[in-house]
Amino acid sequence: PSETHRNAAEARQNTLTKPPGSLGALERIAIQLAALQETERPCADNVQIVLFAGDHGVTAQGISAFPSAVTVEMLRNFASGGAAISVLARKLDARLEVVDAGTLATSEVAGVVTDKPCHGTRDFATTPAMTPDETAFAFDTGRRAVARTVDRGAHLLIFGEMGIGNTTSAAAVAAALLGKAANDLVGAGTGLDSDGIRHKARVIDAALDLHGLKAPDVPAADVLMKVGGLEIAALAGAIVAAAQSRIPVLVDGFIVTAAALAATRLNPSCADWLIYSHRSSEQGHRLILEALDAEPLLDLKMRLGEGSGAAVALSVVRLACALHGEMATFAEAHVSESL
Amino acid sequence: PSETHRNAAEARQNTLTKPPGSLGALERIAIQLAALQETERPCADNVQIVLFAGDHGVTAQGISAFPSAVTVEMLRNFASGGAAISVLARKLDARLEVVDAGTLATSEVAGVVTDKPCHGTRDFATTPAMTPDETAFAFDTGRRAVARTVDRGAHLLIFGEMGIGNTTSAAAVAAALLGKAANDLVGAGTGLDSDGIRHKARVIDAALDLHGLKAPDVPAADVLMKVGGLEIAALAGAIVAAAQSRIPVLVDGFIVTAAALAATRLNPSCADWLIYSHRSSEQGHRLILEALDAEPLLDLKMRLGEGSGAAVALSVVRLACALHGEMATFAEAHVSESL
Repeated sequence: PSETHRNAAEARQNTLTKPPGSLGALERIAIQLAALQETERPCADNVQIVLFAGDHGVTAQGISAFPSAVTVEMLRNFASGGAAISVLARKLDARLEVVDAGTLATSEVAGVVTDKPCHGTRDFATTPAMTPDETAFAFDTGRRAVARTVDRGAHLLIFGEMGIGNTTSAAAVAAALLGKAANDLVGAGTGLDSDGIRHKARVIDAALDLHGLKAPDVPAADVLMKVGGLEIAALAGAIVAAAQSRIPVLVDGFIVTAAALAATRLNPSCADWLIYSHRSSEQGHRLILEALDAEPLLDLKMRLGEGSGAAVALSVVRLACALHGEMATFAEAHVSESL
Repeated sequence: PSETHRNAAEARQNTLTKPPGSLGALERIAIQLAALQETERPCADNVQIVLFAGDHGVTAQGISAFPSAVTVEMLRNFASGGAAISVLARKLDARLEVVDAGTLATSEVAGVVTDKPCHGTRDFATTPAMTPDETAFAFDTGRRAVARTVDRGAHLLIFGEMGIGNTTSAAAVAAALLGKAANDLVGAGTGLDSDGIRHKARVIDAALDLHGLKAPDVPAADVLMKVGGLEIAALAGAIVAAAQSRIPVLVDGFIVTAAALAATRLNPSCADWLIYSHRSSEQGHRLILEALDAEPLLDLKMRLGEGSGAAVALSVVRLACALHGEMATFAEAHVSESL
């Protein structure tokens, strides 16, 4: 990020015809984006959304309200335009690419990029979710997705995810990386009741014990391999690659934020490139956001995933850019300044 | 509001390809709008913004960080497209009408509708802000603005305001209507320091004493006349007229919410037609929102007025409508439902 452009954007905000600071978070976002894009007038018109899907062996433990079959069924729904993120991408005129990063699908789904090392992870309640090779492949799935977007000149990237069982995997990853109890990080996912949530916490807790992930400072790559998911490793790879390509990322909800936490452990400097879109109602999100020192724009009690929270926030980010770039200054408008 | 359409919209939400409730506030807003528009699929494409401007005699007490001249200077800025609300209206493809409801301007400003009984209010620290006739005129200014929009078929109305000194007037109106101390309702306005805020509270407190507005259940019309403003009375009139025309209103920040409180006292049934857009960082807003049992969509620490918070929220309301209307159902997409 460029301090010169951050300062120029901040100075511009203070000349616009409004009381200083009165646009609140919209000023902060415009200034952050100006520093990242190295311009006085940031822009979020050209946006690429990449959604990574994967299946999870841990669903064998009965930790989800929906069956695994839904992951592949939803791949088709994304491609045919009926899912939430499909509707949002269309309305926002953003490109949507859906990547099968490791679902149970045994053949290619039309309109979906297939880039996976295997069909779903193993059940981490009994064995590591992935091999080292599978983990590295999944990480590179994310890198390859970013490489495909670079030529399209995106001002901003949004990463989304879908995968029955992935709030369990994301909670396990976050608990291990933050050294917290599973209980602090589990939530209802797609719709567990309180008994289901307690069971999910017990499954995670036992797995962290089994894999030796309760020690301090466990390496993020090890955590991703043992209790992560193919789409979660892909998200981490995509976030690191976006930062290395100097493209800001509008971070979605619980699962993407857990992947962002892993990415910042793998490569701390990628933290600068993350803009936090919303606080989800999935219980553990707040804790991960605090650990990342993140101040999300929205709090709409969403808990869908797919990148949907980031997509909704994109509409606000675009207005922040428009205000920053198009409002008149006090001098231009001949308006008196403060007494 | 139609219970039939509310129920149909709620039922539709539960058939869409997402965990029930996972779109959070976006579901609530789509359902509320469906009930108000008497349709299963609500829409917020056609939107009219009306901004009412007025000046305030109480600025003589030194309660604002900006001089009164700014109100008229900003009228020109609204009309020429350089103000925040001008930029937002343009980006959102919403119509913006600016009404001089009582500024100090002595001639018409190009691009602004002039509809005022006098040039600014009197200083309510020493005398009632308006006469009964002026108050009635201002109320009708709001009604006339709504009448002008009815033929244009707006799905939703946004009312904004501008007027140096008007957070002082709005805080006085709210304190009187809620029976609260001035101290609970004053904030920094355009940028007072803590000494300035204390002084502003003392001015309001003394005025409420002077005008006998500390009694319980003072009539809203009396409050508007004695410590209100021309644009605040116009806002109250516009809100009542919108509800009577069965057009939902997306309520902006502190001043519009204070006017909405007055409107609901004048005509309680207009409360049904109000959708709350954001919580502003003006201190007293939270208290007025609570009194109205309002749950705003956004909390972006904005405190600009002009209708800007409601305009930003409009982008989210539109996405809520798109998701509600365009997502596939489980049946349409052949996706399995919950276990």
